[in-house]
Amino acid sequence: MASEFDLIRRHFIRPTHHSVLGVGDDCAIVAPRAGFELLVSTDMLVAGTHFFADTDPEGLGWKTAAVNISDIAAMGGEPRWITLALSLPAADEAWIAALAKGFADCCDAFGVDWIGGDTTRGPLNLCATVFGEAPAGAAIRRSGAQPGDEIWISGQPGLAALGLQSLLGRIVLADAAREACLTALHRPQPRVGLGLALRGIASAMLDVSDGLAGDLGHVLESSAVGALLEEDLLPLNALRAAGADAEQARHALFSGGDDYELVFAAPADKRTDVLVLAAALAIPLTRIGHIVSEPGIALATVGGTREPISARGYDHFPG
Amino acid sequence: MASEFDLIRRHFIRPTHHSVLGVGDDCAIVAPRAGFELLVSTDMLVAGTHFFADTDPEGLGWKTAAVNISDIAAMGGEPRWITLALSLPAADEAWIAALAKGFADCCDAFGVDWIGGDTTRGPLNLCATVFGEAPAGAAIRRSGAQPGDEIWISGQPGLAALGLQSLLGRIVLADAAREACLTALHRPQPRVGLGLALRGIASAMLDVSDGLAGDLGHVLESSAVGALLEEDLLPLNALRAAGADAEQARHALFSGGDDYELVFAAPADKRTDVLVLAAALAIPLTRIGHIVSEPGIALATVGGTREPISARGYDHFPG
Repeated sequence: MASEFDLIRRHFIRPTHHSVLGVGDDCAIVAPRAGFELLVSTDMLVAGTHFFADTDPEGLGWKTAAVNISDIAAMGGEPRWITLALSLPAADEAWIAALAKGFADCCDAFGVDWIGGDTTRGPLNLCATVFGEAPAGAAIRRSGAQPGDEIWISGQPGLAALGLQSLLGRIVLADAAREACLTALHRPQPRVGLGLALRGIASAMLDVSDGLAGDLGHVLESSAVGALLEEDLLPLNALRAAGADAEQARHALFSGGDDYELVFAAPADKRTDVLVLAAALAIPLTRIGHIVSEPGIALATVGGTREPISARGYDHFPG
Repeated sequence: MASEFDLIRRHFIRPTHHSVLGVGDDCAIVAPRAGFELLVSTDMLVAGTHFFADTDPEGLGWKTAAVNISDIAAMGGEPRWITLALSLPAADEAWIAALAKGFADCCDAFGVDWIGGDTTRGPLNLCATVFGEAPAGAAIRRSGAQPGDEIWISGQPGLAALGLQSLLGRIVLADAAREACLTALHRPQPRVGLGLALRGIASAMLDVSDGLAGDLGHVLESSAVGALLEEDLLPLNALRAAGADAEQARHALFSGGDDYELVFAAPADKRTDVLVLAAALAIPLTRIGHIVSEPGIALATVGGTREPISARGYDHFPG
């Protein structure tokens, strides 16, 4: 069996493109650009909690990088550098090689230098920390939403949740849809280009990791506002077409996580800008409601009633 | 039981002193100083591998911050920001509060802003990522040691290893020494001030986390040189006085980890500077040998012979 240092050398040392010093010393060294702020986020993925222990390691590597990079996208930042610490029950080299490949492929796809990490023995756990840059003051926070702003969501949230339900045998999906749902679950695409393009347009933004209701709730709480969503604007059709019934589709949209789409608020007079952006980037951007001053999330139904939507997303330690 | 978000809010959100945005958004935001480079290091601590599952949580919190901050010290950087991701089997609030206190106390002691993290459910695992700053080009790497440079070690390495041996019941320490050894094990003090002061003096440096032989071996390998240590210079007396026999003392020094002392090389004409620094900082700095061109570590014994020292420190996945 190869030693820890051999394993690191063989699989975890990749060429860097915009770093001063990569793997191999006490610290990596990078040179942040003058006039930019540094955005930092860390995410830990645990076997049995976030993924099945027997999950495909290459997909797991991709996803570990992707969910971190998504946090940079969610603030309109440019992802630049990432570290990966991992704890492994055994040094299975083929598994490690596949994990490293998936992680590096995602980094390469988004121009991120993999600059360091840590490898140790223990229950399977992956912790990445990602660093992005944005011009000083330009990062899009959660706290800027104003009453009257329109609420938008990118792509097709809910697919990853349907993929998970399908793996758990709780739903039968159409064959064509099943692949799209599993791809959404295993190979999420952080919306980096969209996040960058929304600087100057979005007033508040985050990525949907724990379900639209809970994550939108974080924006609302940070901004001290509420939301009125319109049932007939919600992107439920594709979820129904995939094989979900009305309840499953709504649950996947509001409470399913793991799509890493961006939800954002933008002033109503920016609607054309948003639609132009959607066309230019070929990413669906769906207006689903608007910000109101009353706290909480309400849904204006097609029947003309208003229903409260629970703002609780997925909570690892529910009260 | 409190929810994940409540727990984070209550214990993991601390005031920051030199950060743009702390916990509570997709990313933290910091403003690196112009003309400085950013040093980045990540360390993962796993229950059963790095610490006992029933270890005191406040000490564990301190140590998790300290071992990370030590990596910044080891490059002569100024530690500035840190994140903490953790996976917990259950949300025991008293335990979390103590862990957070120890972590925050160490951050405060070294002027580090705790800017973010992640909390999830799973086997106990702590992953911190720390960011420091150094003027561009000033960081002290492992790769700069030259033949003729003298080799120095700070403080009293080996105490933490004796503390661990004592906890495992493998050694009986003198009462007074036992406390010092356990403090070294549970409350390591990163050598931040020393690291900063060694800029311009040390040619290569790292912190001793896995034992002097293995870690010095990393410096030698990076610098493509070797070391000749002198037995009569080695700081073994305090280890013997603590209750270790000759073999235990030598093993604690060469193969014991967890002291987080700094080992560094410095040109021979800097010897006075180093000794002045030791006096000024009130930190013992012991010259233990010098760099040679032949690879490997050799020990010049008091008997006049030369013995090879295995450069292998602690390896989580030994070959």
